Amino acid sequence: MPRISSPTPRPSDDEAAVAAANAAFYAAFEARDLDGMSAVWEHSDRVSCVHPGWHVLRGWGAVAGSWFALFGGPQHLQFILTDEVVSVAGDTAWVTVDENLLDGDTVGGTVTALNVFLRDAVSETWKLVAHHGSPVAQRQ
Amino acid sequence: MPRISSPTPRPSDDEAAVAAANAAFYAAFEARDLDGMSAVWEHSDRVSCVHPGWHVLRGWGAVAGSWFALFGGPQHLQFILTDEVVSVAGDTAWVTVDENLLDGDTVGGTVTALNVFLRDAVSETWKLVAHHGSPVAQRQ
Repeated sequence: MPRISSPTPRPSDDEAAVAAANAAFYAAFEARDLDGMSAVWEHSDRVSCVHPGWHVLRGWGAVAGSWFALFGGPQHLQFILTDEVVSVAGDTAWVTVDENLLDGDTVGGTVTALNVFLRDAVSETWKLVAHHGSPVAQRQ
Repeated sequence: MPRISSPTPRPSDDEAAVAAANAAFYAAFEARDLDGMSAVWEHSDRVSCVHPGWHVLRGWGAVAGSWFALFGGPQHLQFILTDEVVSVAGDTAWVTVDENLLDGDTVGGTVTALNVFLRDAVSETWKLVAHHGSPVAQRQ
């Protein structure tokens, strides 16, 4: 039997780990938890973030600054996540998910998001390198 | 001298190849070239595409159908691409870029995009697996 020196983890394990990282992102977002948000992201120049309707922000400094500003603002967003799909390819993963914003007890709008994660070589944890959220136009 | 059995390509080569794949996507988009668009994408269930204001489309069938509909419609989009940044991590790459839509000779609006590419194991070419474009709100 051939010796496998570098066994590939079961896809389901990776997918679950990425889904957990994605959930941690939204948990930090809802809780306006800067430390939690910081733990989710890779701290590098290559990260990027697009908030709905915004220009792209690049680099962890600019991205962290946007969360600081958002969390200090009046909006306290809560959402129900739907239609989440996780794809894993080696040490990269991407998640598409709908953020259904709650306005009281009703859904006030939907943001569709693409989140890209890389597996950190040292910690083996999945870190967010790109978040892109955009408003879904109301159906006519 | 240790023998390197699997040399890592120079990052600059990979970045250039990803930039070329990204350019091919926009060339097919502008030319309304379905064959060119088809050649850019991975043909799989895991691809996703968000056109500005749209819900996410998943799977090559739905994505191809959207390009077919767009290319058959009245809009003939042309754009100037600005602020393109390519990041490569192993066999994955992602590109952030602004699509500045031309309205005659003036810029009529900006769409900011995140494009994710994977290197195909057989052909070694970079294939698009996720495109997410969203409108940038006009500055106040």
